[in-house]
Amino acid sequence: MKRKGILIIADGIGDRPIKELEWKTPVEHANTPNLNRLAKLGICGMQDPIFPGQPAGSDTAHLSLLGYDPYQTYRGRGYYEALGAGIDVKEEDLAFRVNFATIENGIIIDRRAGRISTEEAHELVKAIQENVKLPVEFIFKGATSHRAVLVLRGLAEGYKVGENDPHVEGRSPHKFDYEDEASKRTAEILEEFVRQAHEILDNHPINEKRRKEGKPVANYLLIRGAGTAPKIPKKFPEQWKVRAGAIVAVALVRGVLRAVGFEIIEVLGITGEYDTDEMAKAKAVVEALKDYDFIFVHFKPTDAAGHDGNYAKKIEMIKKLDRMVGYILDNVDLEKTIIALTGDHSTPCEVKNHSGDPVPVVIAGGGVRIDDIQEFGERACAKGGLGRINGKYIVPIMMNLMGRAEKYGA
Amino acid sequence: MKRKGILIIADGIGDRPIKELEWKTPVEHANTPNLNRLAKLGICGMQDPIFPGQPAGSDTAHLSLLGYDPYQTYRGRGYYEALGAGIDVKEEDLAFRVNFATIENGIIIDRRAGRISTEEAHELVKAIQENVKLPVEFIFKGATSHRAVLVLRGLAEGYKVGENDPHVEGRSPHKFDYEDEASKRTAEILEEFVRQAHEILDNHPINEKRRKEGKPVANYLLIRGAGTAPKIPKKFPEQWKVRAGAIVAVALVRGVLRAVGFEIIEVLGITGEYDTDEMAKAKAVVEALKDYDFIFVHFKPTDAAGHDGNYAKKIEMIKKLDRMVGYILDNVDLEKTIIALTGDHSTPCEVKNHSGDPVPVVIAGGGVRIDDIQEFGERACAKGGLGRINGKYIVPIMMNLMGRAEKYGA
Repeated sequence: MKRKGILIIADGIGDRPIKELEWKTPVEHANTPNLNRLAKLGICGMQDPIFPGQPAGSDTAHLSLLGYDPYQTYRGRGYYEALGAGIDVKEEDLAFRVNFATIENGIIIDRRAGRISTEEAHELVKAIQENVKLPVEFIFKGATSHRAVLVLRGLAEGYKVGENDPHVEGRSPHKFDYEDEASKRTAEILEEFVRQAHEILDNHPINEKRRKEGKPVANYLLIRGAGTAPKIPKKFPEQWKVRAGAIVAVALVRGVLRAVGFEIIEVLGITGEYDTDEMAKAKAVVEALKDYDFIFVHFKPTDAAGHDGNYAKKIEMIKKLDRMVGYILDNVDLEKTIIALTGDHSTPCEVKNHSGDPVPVVIAGGGVRIDDIQEFGERACAKGGLGRINGKYIVPIMMNLMGRAEKYGA
Repeated sequence: MKRKGILIIADGIGDRPIKELEWKTPVEHANTPNLNRLAKLGICGMQDPIFPGQPAGSDTAHLSLLGYDPYQTYRGRGYYEALGAGIDVKEEDLAFRVNFATIENGIIIDRRAGRISTEEAHELVKAIQENVKLPVEFIFKGATSHRAVLVLRGLAEGYKVGENDPHVEGRSPHKFDYEDEASKRTAEILEEFVRQAHEILDNHPINEKRRKEGKPVANYLLIRGAGTAPKIPKKFPEQWKVRAGAIVAVALVRGVLRAVGFEIIEVLGITGEYDTDEMAKAKAVVEALKDYDFIFVHFKPTDAAGHDGNYAKKIEMIKKLDRMVGYILDNVDLEKTIIALTGDHSTPCEVKNHSGDPVPVVIAGGGVRIDDIQEFGERACAKGGLGRINGKYIVPIMMNLMGRAEKYGA
């Protein structure tokens, strides 16, 4: 019997025990009737997105959770940023994350140029795209506020290049370092790009206006996160013979999903921020299940609350997630659908960043061997029937239950 | 202290919860006092023969359960079929599984030639062996009914070749495709073999008789499953310094055991079918333990019942297995013997085929760290002290308890 699948990623949901929560984690402490319903209906366990103890990035973690070994596929962050920003990045391209910054007497005094407005930044982007002359074709595109993306056409082989971002203010920008000959050329082109851009920006009317208003000028570019296309042996829809759709707001994660062959399903009201419309997301999942065999749905704000170190906010966001899951459970036939829920990594409030703690996972529906776990949480799931698995096996396990895994051997 | 070892493989024993069994699996539902005795005496866990979610073939699974990584050793099915059929296949040979089939006006109308009798088929095999002329030496050997095996001498390097079997009736046979130059030559030789065989078969007296009787004629050969010797780094007896014997009826599994260096112990009454004599098997194990250090014993009919989707039959076969295990437990000194029992994969009645669900495993005897699991079953063993392991570690774990594993490092 062929079944459909829904993979729900609650970004950074895993956490550590918190004194103020009577040494429970946010997901253990939150009132989550629907996550617990899912746990009761399914088989639970713990998963390590990379390997035990290794903190995962959002890109590497998602590659793994989509069934790809990150060590064999990942070649840097910039590629996903650029895809997520809507640039049609080719396999031979090299992409970077860029910040507008403020430089004064050779010292970076603001790494975000006073969080310049998106409108102003886009005006500056245009000036750079039109006036910088490089020996290779390039695409420079603004995102929100001080964030932008740079793509250098045809330089994929020279991807082993460093960054000029000193990551702290009050220091000079770095020179771009490199690991091989091909990357040396990239470094030279980047130096030239930054030099010309600085000239254009420093005298640009927008910056003269900002200078007069006493605002930090956006007169320098900090470039990091060199990345080229991941080495995807077989795209997801081809490998599993499914039509695969993704509901996701965050650019980096959208980029990963696009890179492995998912169609992005656009949904109004989903933001990747605390205010994201979780019910719009839930309804879109149920709706998309008519046309797609496999739906990926991403819920970001649990991670944001972890980065903020705000456990009360994290609990609030987990309740939001719980409502989303409730609607999906109420409107999906579990006999014909496999639902998996996990996080891409832990983002403990204590750490305020991604950590290498394993993440609870539940898989429900179809012929799954339901275990006796009654609630979704770090320590409850650690006793579940799935045991402790690597995150890259979640999709194969789902596909097996969906009747879509092919036998190896005879 | 050096101990002996018995590895019992209950083929396809793993399953999924079944409504008619009050959502228990067949092994959870069956009355199995001896399997439960083994669980109480041992340490339990779950094992993935390949990796979580990946359905395993019988050949790849057995390679793994004998301690060999299938991805590093497996090179197709035909080799095991040929070994199992008693052909002395060399490393440079290439082997195939062959079906006698019925072709009419270029269309395959019966993929098994009306399940022709073994006697008739062997007569046809003889005619082909004597009359087909190829540029390489070949061995064509009948098995049971429509099944046969073909070995092409010296063509191992050209093993990346497809099949002519369309796998459904009412279609033309495929042309053999190939992936490289060496395999192109194999494809050409196979086309020639099939062409000459068709001429010989179509006019053979046996087929003229069948035609008169209104039976499907065996006038075509469908060839599939190209396979050459596995890349076995070190044969089992050499690697572990044990005398190793196998009690197994099924040709494919016999082939794997022979390939890794086991001696086949012939036992009267074991058939690989529902009627197999489990007590003959049990007695043979106890008897063989006098001469051998390591005994592999295979129990097939649990898998057959899963393929048939017949849970009642599967329960009956599990009880048969239980009797076999009972006799072994009653007649073996667990102080001096390590007994492991698991399946080569799950064959859920729901799926009617191999699935990627993990398989319960128990290891008893010697100094094993007995856990508190009281019964052998999917969900009981998932709570056991072994945790969730890859199937290829079962032999090393046994050998460690048998005092036969060598230290790595100083």
